[in-house]
Amino acid sequence: MIRIVVTGGTFDKEYNELNGTLFFKDTHVPEMLRLGRSLVEVGVDTLMMMDSLDMTDADRARIVQACRDAEESRIVVTHGTDTMVQTARSIATSGDAALAAKTIVLTGAMVPYAFGSSDGLFNLGSALSFVQALPAGVYVAMNGRCFPWDAVEKDREAGIFREVRT
Amino acid sequence: MIRIVVTGGTFDKEYNELNGTLFFKDTHVPEMLRLGRSLVEVGVDTLMMMDSLDMTDADRARIVQACRDAEESRIVVTHGTDTMVQTARSIATSGDAALAAKTIVLTGAMVPYAFGSSDGLFNLGSALSFVQALPAGVYVAMNGRCFPWDAVEKDREAGIFREVRT
Amino acid sequence: MIRIVVTGGTFDKEYNELNGTLFFKDTHVPEMLRLGRSLVEVGVDTLMMMDSLDMTDADRARIVQACRDAEESRIVVTHGTDTMVQTARSIATSGDAALAAKTIVLTGAMVPYAFGSSDGLFNLGSALSFVQALPAGVYVAMNGRCFPWDAVEKDREAGIFREVRT
Amino acid sequence: MIRIVVTGGTFDKEYNELNGTLFFKDTHVPEMLRLGRSLVEVGVDTLMMMDSLDMTDADRARIVQACRDAEESRIVVTHGTDTMVQTARSIATSGDAALAAKTIVLTGAMVPYAFGSSDGLFNLGSALSFVQALPAGVYVAMNGRCFPWDAVEKDREAGIFREVRT
Repeated sequence: MIRIVVTGGTFDKEYNELNGTLFFKDTHVPEMLRLGRSLVEVGVDTLMMMDSLDMTDADRARIVQACRDAEESRIVVTHGTDTMVQTARSIATSGDAALAAKTIVLTGAMVPYAFGSSDGLFNLGSALSFVQALPAGVYVAMNGRCFPWDAVEKDREAGIFREVRT
Repeated sequence: MIRIVVTGGTFDKEYNELNGTLFFKDTHVPEMLRLGRSLVEVGVDTLMMMDSLDMTDADRARIVQACRDAEESRIVVTHGTDTMVQTARSIATSGDAALAAKTIVLTGAMVPYAFGSSDGLFNLGSALSFVQALPAGVYVAMNGRCFPWDAVEKDREAGIFREVRT
Repeated sequence: MIRIVVTGGTFDKEYNELNGTLFFKDTHVPEMLRLGRSLVEVGVDTLMMMDSLDMTDADRARIVQACRDAEESRIVVTHGTDTMVQTARSIATSGDAALAAKTIVLTGAMVPYAFGSSDGLFNLGSALSFVQALPAGVYVAMNGRCFPWDAVEKDREAGIFREVRT
Repeated sequence: MIRIVVTGGTFDKEYNELNGTLFFKDTHVPEMLRLGRSLVEVGVDTLMMMDSLDMTDADRARIVQACRDAEESRIVVTHGTDTMVQTARSIATSGDAALAAKTIVLTGAMVPYAFGSSDGLFNLGSALSFVQALPAGVYVAMNGRCFPWDAVEKDREAGIFREVRT
C-alpha cells in the first residue's frame, strides 16, 4: 500500500469565479486516481492545502512527521513546485532512520488539474509508478523524470526541473 | 533515450463526426508528452494504427522486430488493451538475446485520449516512468500498476488488468 | 418557462470502455445547463434516447405528442442530426393549432458532449437563446444559425446544416 | 454578417504557469467558433484585452466608437462581467443615431474558456444567437438569458446576472 500525502500546490488550485482568484478547496487526487482507473492500493491524507511559497519550517516539519508516521514504506507527496526541492531536502536530511528506509516521491503540477492544459494527471501517474519501482530514497518526479533530492533544481524561468551535479 | 512504438489501440482513437464511428488518424502521443511537460528524451515511431483485436501474427511479428531493431534499450509500446498481454508474450518469448536485455513496457487506454474521461495521460506517465526504473523484462503497465508479462491478464468484464499466478 | 425534450442523438452518446462502442446512458443536458450557469427556467424531459437514424414514424409521433402536451409555448428538442430536419417537418406539419402557436427549436451535436471537442454546449446555448427570441414556428438551430424547418437540410458529406430555397 | 468586438475579460484569461497568475494572450473567440462548428459569417476584432475592472472612460469610449465604426448592424462584444452593464449603458446612451439602429449584445464568462469548467462556449453560442434574433437595442446575454441594458445588474455575491426593474 502507498500513502499519498497532499500538501496543496498548483496541482489542487481552483478558480474562484466570484472574484477571479485562485484558491484551494478539496484535493483532486482521488478524482485523478479514478480518472486514471488506478487500482494501486493507496491511502490519501490531506495534510495541508498550501501554496509552497507560503510554507514555513513548521509546515515542512509537519510533512516530515507525516512521512515518518505513515505505516507505509512508499509515499507520494503532492506539493507546490516552487519549494518542492526544499521539502525533499528536509525529508532526506531529517536524520530519522525509519524515514531513510522509505521510498518517498514528491510531485506537483505546473498548471492546476482543474484547468484544461494541466500536466497533473501525467505527473501523478509518473510519481505513483516511480514510487513503486525505486529503492529507498527521496526523489522529485516532474517532467516525466525522477531525480534524487540532491541532484535537482527548479528552473523558474523555464518552468522545468533539471538535474544539478552536486 | 527511450523509444515509443505506437501501434494504435483505444489510446489513439478519434470520433468521426461525419458518420459517428471511431477511427484512427494520427497518434496523440507527442501531444500528450507536451501536455505532460515531458523532458524525457524520446523518439516516437508510429509502426501501425490498429485495433488490437484485428492484429495478426504478422502484425505482432512486426512489433517484435521494431523492439529488436530499436537502438534504445528502454521501449514503451502503446497498444490496444484487448490483446496487449498476447503481444507482450510474443516479445518476451521471441528467443532473441538482444531483446531479453531490454526493458519493454506496454500500455494503452480504456478510453480514447481525445475524450474527456480518458485514462491515457495517466497511463503514459506511468509507463514512461516504469520503463526508466525497471530492470530488463517485458511488462504491462495499466491501472497505475506494472505486471511482468506472464503474470497479468485483462479482465474484460471489469475492464481492468489483474495479476495472475502462473 | 421552457421545456427541453431530450430524444438522444450524438449529443448524449457516451463511450463504453468495456467494449469500445458508443451508447446512451443518461442525458447530459442538466449538467450542460449547470456548466453554462444557465438561469433560464427549464423543465427537462427525457422522452427517448435514440440514434435518430433508428427513429420510426411512431417515435416521431411521440415527439410531436410531447411538444403538444407540454404546457410551455417554447420548446427545445435535442435530437440526432441525421433526421433532425425530418422530425422538424413532422412537428410543423402535424396540423395541430396549439402546436402552431409554439416556438420549437431542434438542436443536436456533431460530437458527443462527453468528448473533448464537442459542439454541444455551444449548440445548447444557441438553441436556448433562439427559442426565447423567435416567434412561433419550428426551427433547426445548428452551426450558430437558426433555420425555419422548411428551409434547411443537412449536408452529410460536409457535416453541416445549410439553407435550402423552397 | 456579424461583428465580434473582443475586449478581454475572464473569457480570455489564461494561466501563466511560470508565476501562477492569470493573464491575457490572444483571444479564444476564433477557436471557440471552430469548436461550435459556427458557420455564422463573422469578423473578429480584438480591440483590447482588459480586465473590465481596469477599464477607464477612455476605454469605454473606444468600445462605443468601435461599435459605431463597424459596418455591421449586429455586434457581439465580449467583455469582463464586472463592468459589462456599465459598458452596455455607455453604448446605449451615446446619443448616436447610427448606434441606436444596431443590435448589440455583450457577453462574457465567469470562468476562463481555457479552464475545464468554463461557461464561455455556452455564452458565446447564446450571444451569437440573440444578436441574430433580437431587434435593435443594447443587451447583456449571460446565464442563458438576455436583458435590455437598463434592466440588468450583476449580483457579485452570487456571481450571476439578474433583472432589475427600473
